Amino acid sequence: MANKPNQLKRPGEFDLIERFFAPLTGDGSFGLKDDAAVISPKVGYDTVITQDAILEQVHFFSDDPLDLIAKKALRVNVSDIIAKGANPTHYSIALGVPDWMEEKHFVAFSAGLREDQGQYGVTLTGGDTYRSQDRLAVSVTMLGELPVGSYVSRLGARTGDLIFVTGTIGDAQLGLELRKSLVHFPPDGTFSIEQRELIQRQILPNPPMGIQSVIRQFATASMDVSDGLIGDLQKLCLASNVAATVFEENIPTSKEARHVMESEAEPNGTVSAIRRSMLTGGDDYQCLFTVPCARRADLLKEALNRGLHVSQIGEVSPGPSGELAVLSNGKQVLFENGSYSHF
Amino acid sequence: MANKPNQLKRPGEFDLIERFFAPLTGDGSFGLKDDAAVISPKVGYDTVITQDAILEQVHFFSDDPLDLIAKKALRVNVSDIIAKGANPTHYSIALGVPDWMEEKHFVAFSAGLREDQGQYGVTLTGGDTYRSQDRLAVSVTMLGELPVGSYVSRLGARTGDLIFVTGTIGDAQLGLELRKSLVHFPPDGTFSIEQRELIQRQILPNPPMGIQSVIRQFATASMDVSDGLIGDLQKLCLASNVAATVFEENIPTSKEARHVMESEAEPNGTVSAIRRSMLTGGDDYQCLFTVPCARRADLLKEALNRGLHVSQIGEVSPGPSGELAVLSNGKQVLFENGSYSHF
Repeated sequence: MANKPNQLKRPGEFDLIERFFAPLTGDGSFGLKDDAAVISPKVGYDTVITQDAILEQVHFFSDDPLDLIAKKALRVNVSDIIAKGANPTHYSIALGVPDWMEEKHFVAFSAGLREDQGQYGVTLTGGDTYRSQDRLAVSVTMLGELPVGSYVSRLGARTGDLIFVTGTIGDAQLGLELRKSLVHFPPDGTFSIEQRELIQRQILPNPPMGIQSVIRQFATASMDVSDGLIGDLQKLCLASNVAATVFEENIPTSKEARHVMESEAEPNGTVSAIRRSMLTGGDDYQCLFTVPCARRADLLKEALNRGLHVSQIGEVSPGPSGELAVLSNGKQVLFENGSYSHF
Repeated sequence: MANKPNQLKRPGEFDLIERFFAPLTGDGSFGLKDDAAVISPKVGYDTVITQDAILEQVHFFSDDPLDLIAKKALRVNVSDIIAKGANPTHYSIALGVPDWMEEKHFVAFSAGLREDQGQYGVTLTGGDTYRSQDRLAVSVTMLGELPVGSYVSRLGARTGDLIFVTGTIGDAQLGLELRKSLVHFPPDGTFSIEQRELIQRQILPNPPMGIQSVIRQFATASMDVSDGLIGDLQKLCLASNVAATVFEENIPTSKEARHVMESEAEPNGTVSAIRRSMLTGGDDYQCLFTVPCARRADLLKEALNRGLHVSQIGEVSPGPSGELAVLSNGKQVLFENGSYSHF
């Protein structure tokens, strides 16, 4: 709690803000020269707010490239916003800066933010930097907007609704397991093309932009899959006070994941340990939502028109709140722990 | 990056959220059962957003009571919001939880939040908890609202404007110096009544609620004083592209601070080291604003009606952007470093 002279190989806080963060702001943020920012919500629109932090050694590895860490911090929040049916608009960032961060790291970090701002249509409103003892911590708060009354929570799933998921499930978990098998990132070539693709998906999520209007039009309940599909679906069912049946063989798997799994296939069609880990591991950042049965055909048509990949993986069923039956080719699969915990 | 069994003396993340944080939410937050929250901005109002983090051993001491740490995390953000002329409405919180935090600490932390929610009219929208290695980190994002177009930035000060500050300046800095003089908080009675009051002001800021409408009506530029009056006024002048003259003897001092200063008075009316430290130390969380000269009488009347303490400390003058002349009884005082840095 004292004035420390800056003996680090980086600019002071004022310069950092002016050089790397001020250029990322939009209207109402005064180039970060002010204490706060002002936003004029569109008439007829609600504001959606979410806050998700990522921490070195918990949500990313210490040797991940800084531009990708910045993008991941944004994308885990984009994932929450779009799963509610909203368009992301603004974000602010609290950055716990460890001593190892030098000027070049800020160059990369802010470049990552800039690229993703273009991709997701958000601008920076402000935030805070403080010195962190050892680990980089990035806490992002993101705002989104949607037409009044069109927000989709986790709470509206009804018996008979069908359960859908976007993209593929388990890729990031496989990528994580590949990375953990080595202390350091290996030189190029150690991993196969498929393995490298899975690792990329662990490092950098790719939330399904464009799903927002589909969610608003069709979904009775929706959330993002970030802590494992099985555990997250349990949470959705608990919040909606329903049960669900999931058909394991319908859960979408990427060709890269299939390639890796084939080399570890188990006999008799049992659900392998690797497959279990894919269904309970974190970092998918896909969208999980329920749709009334009668709207199935319209949903599929709309998703097709928009180039979005959605898969029907199960249905909402009567039964105790939060109870999941996972069937694999008709046989029930039991999970001890359906969820990944960062805590 | 693995599932760790919870061997800590505290509930798991899910229980923590349900027991301690869900009861703090308002409409649109779904009792924290959802990924995000939805807010309906009032028609004719803009939204103001700010994000400020406080960190153990940087912004508060490890032995500060948890309810007061929670309140400080809110109040440093309330201070930013009201300095812009806005009423605080919502906040979200990212909590880096160190291993030493047990159930009793969460009881106290959430009780502190609840009390301040009542005082400042805010509700919780959500947030995130993650395990922090050693130090408690509390990052709050706060939203506020004000009538469209009435936001007051730092950028509007004009030559001839008068400079005002709320409350008294330097109390928290004196409290900090008293606390740093001892390794541990002393038993009651070691400090005088006045010293204890100053320490309280360091632990828990008290931003001048009610100033919002005064700022909107009268201020051309405004900010909160959080990193030292002299440095913060320099920032305001830089942002507004003006210079300023400050009269040291007009900077308001509490009777408790005067009591402590008298015992350390220096001869010949020079500005003592302790006084310098009060004008450059952090944690005042008062409001610093500029008002056109012609509106002075109306401002003072309005502040009086609202029971708010405001003091005229100087005036905006022509000159190089950001240049401050601090005069003490007509003699110029020079400051090496006008600002407190947490970085």
